[in-house]
Amino acid sequence: MVENVVIIGSGPAGLSAAIYTAREEFSPLLIKGTGAGGQLLLTTDVENYPAFERIAGPQLIRSMEQHATKFGTRFLEGDVTRVDLRAKPIKVYLGETVIETNSLIISTGASSKWMGLQSEKNFIGRGVSSCATCDAVFFKNKDVIVVGGGDTAMEDSLFLTKFVNSVTVVHRRDSLRASKIMQQRALTNPKIKFIWDTAVEEVLGDKKVSGAKLRNLKTDQVTEMKTDGIFVAIGHQPNTELFKGQLELDDQGYIITKDDVLTNIRGVYAAGDVADRFYKQAITAAASGVKAALRVREYLSMLKFEEEQKAKH
Amino acid sequence: MVENVVIIGSGPAGLSAAIYTAREEFSPLLIKGTGAGGQLLLTTDVENYPAFERIAGPQLIRSMEQHATKFGTRFLEGDVTRVDLRAKPIKVYLGETVIETNSLIISTGASSKWMGLQSEKNFIGRGVSSCATCDAVFFKNKDVIVVGGGDTAMEDSLFLTKFVNSVTVVHRRDSLRASKIMQQRALTNPKIKFIWDTAVEEVLGDKKVSGAKLRNLKTDQVTEMKTDGIFVAIGHQPNTELFKGQLELDDQGYIITKDDVLTNIRGVYAAGDVADRFYKQAITAAASGVKAALRVREYLSMLKFEEEQKAKH
Repeated sequence: MVENVVIIGSGPAGLSAAIYTAREEFSPLLIKGTGAGGQLLLTTDVENYPAFERIAGPQLIRSMEQHATKFGTRFLEGDVTRVDLRAKPIKVYLGETVIETNSLIISTGASSKWMGLQSEKNFIGRGVSSCATCDAVFFKNKDVIVVGGGDTAMEDSLFLTKFVNSVTVVHRRDSLRASKIMQQRALTNPKIKFIWDTAVEEVLGDKKVSGAKLRNLKTDQVTEMKTDGIFVAIGHQPNTELFKGQLELDDQGYIITKDDVLTNIRGVYAAGDVADRFYKQAITAAASGVKAALRVREYLSMLKFEEEQKAKH
Repeated sequence: MVENVVIIGSGPAGLSAAIYTAREEFSPLLIKGTGAGGQLLLTTDVENYPAFERIAGPQLIRSMEQHATKFGTRFLEGDVTRVDLRAKPIKVYLGETVIETNSLIISTGASSKWMGLQSEKNFIGRGVSSCATCDAVFFKNKDVIVVGGGDTAMEDSLFLTKFVNSVTVVHRRDSLRASKIMQQRALTNPKIKFIWDTAVEEVLGDKKVSGAKLRNLKTDQVTEMKTDGIFVAIGHQPNTELFKGQLELDDQGYIITKDDVLTNIRGVYAAGDVADRFYKQAITAAASGVKAALRVREYLSMLKFEEEQKAKH
């Protein structure tokens, strides 16, 4: 059996693509991998998905799953191990299992790079965040740490100053990787302090974050600092390992798209953070899933027509 | 007083832009014109806004309005009569009133072209629709008319065949304006019939549509036909009259954008159907509103920085 459409990934992009393709009776097969649900499961409250004044991240994902299920999406749990995008039909492997499909929507998302501490993991959603845009308002008049030295770290720091009492940027080096203009803005902002040559060694707290243990990487001196929150802004990594050598990726590994969702292979579409370096919002991911679905509709309709014409001649 | 950001239009694009810019404490001013709320107010149920299994179109708009209000959007009712986008700050006129703003989001939407019949107007939302994608599922196993001969009319007809019992295309001419491939697909589909050289003269019905009075434009013969629904697919008109000569528009009047929302003028962004010829969904409009808001944030931050630098020297 050849599927009409397979969707890899179950964040807002994949689920929205499922809702649309299911509603058009293509009976999509959505493959939920490890980390199913995407980054929203790591967020506490979402206040910026238009029309929901406030919804818990996991609840938003559950609502989308129900929505997709209602119209007939089939879900498969497992990790895709290999794809052959040039094959006709396209082949998707889960270990020994092979799934054949006429079209494919890739919505495998991006993963925040974390520092890699056990204590950090324990406090995700309880003071540790990787999304300033999502969570800044929950830290009004608090003191927070931002970890990182790139553009995202500076943007996050500047954005946070509108809400928090103070931002302390903790950076491993003695200079910033960020663009000059972002550096200047951050360095001249009175609410932002910098601690150079330093890494967070442990996140401290009981139920919520209350501090951080910092190590100066030059002197090896360890100090403790009080803080209400830690924003980790050391970058994102698009989950595109599977597609290397088959799809065009940019220098950071994001899938290169035209018109938001078209990849360099016909019948293969990308949606959500896997192809988005800039916006990275639940709503923008959902919309690109929808765009991919509408492109799938167009593509399958063309495919069907071509086959009918071939059958005639 | 110079506003940070003015938003023109109150459909999903404008309201989503308001939600984001309000949440970032830019205190946006949203101008609701005639036809406030956009095309969603003309839809009955929306089943394809991800995470809402089903919501009435007007209710979706109300939820977004509440969401935008909660974070501090200010609403102004009235019609913009003139804009000066090259002025610094940008000028927006409502008759004698002048509003000055550092940035502007244009989300004035598009209007479906209607046939222009009083009886048609009476049945909008009660059997008369301009959106097959939105409303097809409500016509399962019914007989419907599609009015039009272009690509949209053919796409709508083909899409409708998945749900309805029959589609009758009523077209003013004796050949289709649609692309060859769309023509072929529609003409060879057994569920689609064609009535040529004919216009709908009156929509018939009591509480819901039950038929149509048709006039053959060559013979002037008038006939009546039973039908459960009439889909008007004679095109959309982006609402860009105000911006002619200032923004780059395409041959159909849509605002030409880069990266979805950037126009040819710095500080001026377009979101939603006013710049979207293809997707035209509530969710894609909402997402582009969000993208415009994030661009406004970037732009205002740069503007502020430039002013600070100027003040120093």
